[in-house]
Amino acid sequence: MKIRLATDADRDAIWSIFHEVVAAGDTYALDPNISREDALAYWFAPSTHTYVAEIDRESVGEADSFPGTATPSRTANPNHVTAGTYILRPNQSGGGAHVANAGFMVSASARGQGIGRAMAEHCLSEAHRLGFRAMQFNYVISTNTVAIRLWQDLGFEIVGTLPSAFRYPDKGYVDVYVMFRSLL
Amino acid sequence: MKIRLATDADRDAIWSIFHEVVAAGDTYALDPNISREDALAYWFAPSTHTYVAEIDRESVGEADSFPGTATPSRTANPNHVTAGTYILRPNQSGGGAHVANAGFMVSASARGQGIGRAMAEHCLSEAHRLGFRAMQFNYVISTNTVAIRLWQDLGFEIVGTLPSAFRYPDKGYVDVYVMFRSLL
Repeated sequence: MKIRLATDADRDAIWSIFHEVVAAGDTYALDPNISREDALAYWFAPSTHTYVAEIDRESVGEADSFPGTATPSRTANPNHVTAGTYILRPNQSGGGAHVANAGFMVSASARGQGIGRAMAEHCLSEAHRLGFRAMQFNYVISTNTVAIRLWQDLGFEIVGTLPSAFRYPDKGYVDVYVMFRSLL
Repeated sequence: MKIRLATDADRDAIWSIFHEVVAAGDTYALDPNISREDALAYWFAPSTHTYVAEIDRESVGEADSFPGTATPSRTANPNHVTAGTYILRPNQSGGGAHVANAGFMVSASARGQGIGRAMAEHCLSEAHRLGFRAMQFNYVISTNTVAIRLWQDLGFEIVGTLPSAFRYPDKGYVDVYVMFRSLL
């Protein structure tokens, strides 16, 4: 697996993953019908560092065996596919700019291979390198136990609970966590 | 005091208050050097409801007696000055759009007259009218005791603490609170 800064050549692959994740409507508080243009403007916003995770083609699951999920996108290198993407940015401006925020997306057919964890570890290292003093996740849906366990394993703590702040497409209202980790 | 939706004619008055509040650098995590264009784009963003509070001219303190603070701005009505402004918007999109977020700014020379409280009560009423189920403040600086007391008095609770998440221009790092209130 290789994790690197994204370029314009990665936009198709990123949109493919972004669309798949957001259309599901169960992990991000974003409009499931967000346009490609708005999605890429968000993922490549000013002050945002955008990364992709590439894996060898042979380690990719066949799309056919995951009905309804997208195939990881081919990259410029025909031996690699883009399996995930993440962003790293200041969570606030001015007096809050020393706290980083990050967001992660993994292609459904590439899950269970540690790509989320690898990107998170890469992200913490990059945040440290860029001089951030802490990292905050503003919106971790309480039913996303896989993500919560991963963040806790990486040193994040739940520092806040937002009651019924997320409406699941099918499960109704659930709590949302704010998670935080010092980088000092 | 009259609180109403802002129009384009209020942009000068809003920028005057916004600039004063943000340049102080002690209540908002925004770039103290933000441009007028970026500030107004933020305050009048899509999906954002923008309001102003007007007061009679005779109830305005003289700017001379508050060195370094701006005079509340004249409005289109010569008998009124714009003493404060607030925004109301969804805190997130998609499955998080039922929770409102709001931001308040009061001109320094108009403080201590209950304008913040009046705008907050107006805001809660508007949020209820617009169908929001809750209101969340993402970033209440822990040393801003006047605001915290007001929010608690209006039914908000501290639901999260972000350690050392704000760097004061002079006091160093301080905690930040996430505050939340149901509207049901």
